[in-house]
Amino acid sequence: MFFKDFDNGRLRSKITGERFSVTYTIKGNAREALDRARDICIEQTVEFPVDLIPEGAMRDSVCGRIESFEDLKNDACRAVISYAAEVATDELTQLINVIFGNISLMGGIRVERFDLPPSMLKRFKGPRFGIEDIRAITSVHERPLLFAVLKPMGLSPGDMADLAYRYASGGMDVIKDDHGLTDQIFCPFRERVALCAEAVNRANRETGKKTIYLPNVTASFDKIVERARFARDVGAGGILVEPGLTGIDAMRYLAEDDDIAAPIFSQPALQGTCLLGESGLSHYSLLGLINRIAGADGVIFPHAGGRFSFSEDECRDIVKGCREEMGGLRPIFPCPGGGLTPDRIAGVTRFYGKDAIFLIGGGLFRQGPDIIENCRRLLKAVQDTQQGASARHG
Amino acid sequence: MFFKDFDNGRLRSKITGERFSVTYTIKGNAREALDRARDICIEQTVEFPVDLIPEGAMRDSVCGRIESFEDLKNDACRAVISYAAEVATDELTQLINVIFGNISLMGGIRVERFDLPPSMLKRFKGPRFGIEDIRAITSVHERPLLFAVLKPMGLSPGDMADLAYRYASGGMDVIKDDHGLTDQIFCPFRERVALCAEAVNRANRETGKKTIYLPNVTASFDKIVERARFARDVGAGGILVEPGLTGIDAMRYLAEDDDIAAPIFSQPALQGTCLLGESGLSHYSLLGLINRIAGADGVIFPHAGGRFSFSEDECRDIVKGCREEMGGLRPIFPCPGGGLTPDRIAGVTRFYGKDAIFLIGGGLFRQGPDIIENCRRLLKAVQDTQQGASARHG
Repeated sequence: MFFKDFDNGRLRSKITGERFSVTYTIKGNAREALDRARDICIEQTVEFPVDLIPEGAMRDSVCGRIESFEDLKNDACRAVISYAAEVATDELTQLINVIFGNISLMGGIRVERFDLPPSMLKRFKGPRFGIEDIRAITSVHERPLLFAVLKPMGLSPGDMADLAYRYASGGMDVIKDDHGLTDQIFCPFRERVALCAEAVNRANRETGKKTIYLPNVTASFDKIVERARFARDVGAGGILVEPGLTGIDAMRYLAEDDDIAAPIFSQPALQGTCLLGESGLSHYSLLGLINRIAGADGVIFPHAGGRFSFSEDECRDIVKGCREEMGGLRPIFPCPGGGLTPDRIAGVTRFYGKDAIFLIGGGLFRQGPDIIENCRRLLKAVQDTQQGASARHG
Repeated sequence: MFFKDFDNGRLRSKITGERFSVTYTIKGNAREALDRARDICIEQTVEFPVDLIPEGAMRDSVCGRIESFEDLKNDACRAVISYAAEVATDELTQLINVIFGNISLMGGIRVERFDLPPSMLKRFKGPRFGIEDIRAITSVHERPLLFAVLKPMGLSPGDMADLAYRYASGGMDVIKDDHGLTDQIFCPFRERVALCAEAVNRANRETGKKTIYLPNVTASFDKIVERARFARDVGAGGILVEPGLTGIDAMRYLAEDDDIAAPIFSQPALQGTCLLGESGLSHYSLLGLINRIAGADGVIFPHAGGRFSFSEDECRDIVKGCREEMGGLRPIFPCPGGGLTPDRIAGVTRFYGKDAIFLIGGGLFRQGPDIIENCRRLLKAVQDTQQGASARHG
């Protein structure tokens, strides 16, 4: 046997016993799913024939461990599997790899949630601002915030800046580049971002408000940081990141960089297949927990009932992942969008409460040609809804 | 109307007319799927109410365009949609975003293939080595190559190096870190990589062979390049990247960096949900085309019939994406693995032909305690199969 000289004592001395757990839903009846749960313990760690794994710390501690198992009936079971903190290292990439890397290729396995001990959560700084500091920055304390989008693609940087100025003048709290705006030749990044930041800051000086503009810094690997710094240099006030395209850890890096130190909002482009269907990560885990660990201050996602496929329960789960207590990581804003219109504001306010940012895209163009007036009406709708809620509860 | 002053002439002047196309399978009957195809044209570009899009270049050129539509029956249709090259920019992140970013959230849409004109393919350097140069480096010209894996996790760097030495001495052509080995405290990156590279190079001096060792440089955003450089500095000979964890463009960056200039192999951790089911990207597109554009010289994936869920057709499609003519981008090695054992070698050789690298993990530990001897037997099995094939065809 090749491993007869394996130094078990050395390995044992490197493992603290600290573990984190992942809750999986596994397709199959109890017998099948239990076999698969045992496979997961191996697949996500040693990836080695079980009978050849040396006795001792490798088998007891490096391999995953089934902590509980439950038959959910209907051809699905739930298994909680724990892993040694040392297997996941301090790196978010490897944590995600242990949670779901290789088994993403197997089908029929879904990550419902994961639970890190405080000692592991402490390794991540998480959101730099969160709900509280975004409220402080924008000086909006008692109502949901409003989020407008610079679109459609094809406008010039000057037209985008004009639109940004109108949004900010009309009272929008946060304005972002549309998720497909990057560095198109008809709307180059630097020109657009400089002009839009200037336009928003000009409107801010006129209104006394403090609207944030979020340039989309999703870009080539070697351009992401440069664009985030440019956004800061021109006074944009924040950035937009698409972690499905940049890699999730790029966002963590941006969030932890003291030199950038800007509010970060995440958008789920390319992450859809991870969320839909029987295989993947739950909305709670991917859009809530992982975004928060990776330092997002706000999470953009499509609200139920629009043209996307999220359900109300899934939206509630995202909110939970954004706001629930999480070892000292700041609560962050859920930012539902995806076809919201002014007449849906009252409904979404009841659904999300005040600690949310409502994203309105094309809907702002529907009420007439005066964008500033459309924004003001939307803002009034939010204020009215909130005052109604306060009066009822006051 | 807000866009009455929209400068159509300016936009028109920025758009060359060069377009690329994406072939989607869309769930639904012809009427439903055609509606969805029209939505895709908008969603992936201007993301704006159709009736409010200004006439002219925005509507004609920036929006996607349905080039063909076919009812496949069985509740699915096929649509070919073209997009302006300028919408995708020069950046791989944005190209992927246009192909499938937002619509990944919709469900029931699958990217079967995409076709870039030569002028767009030229923007990517692609694989630096490919099949031809990997063969030149390893001096293996007439047979499939063999790929061994350093595992199980839990071994010390010294044990890993001992194993690497045995693999190389036994004739394995490529050796990689297991996909979960990153920087665990019980097997730190630098110590492991330095020792393993030294061990493989020592074996190479003894055998006269040129085995490549691939350290896994999947890491935090700010550590990826540093680790790739360390791998080069200690003479590893190549690197392993998991683009599902690092972001796909990190691999492109590593491949194009003249300072690193190392063969790159990709592993599909976390990419499974993109491949399985009705929503996502085809194996051909994600593991073939995108890996190749992003500069992988070899693509690791689980062969059909093992513990993963790929079919033989899907494996054939990966091979096609790796090897077919593609505007001057070098053909690359498909590297099937996932539970291969020596007795399956003849079968996979018939399936993949000689331009493949067969990955054997735990299977190398099954034939007895002498790893060097197990490797030699495996190598002989490959040589025999190939000579048999040559004799038949010769």
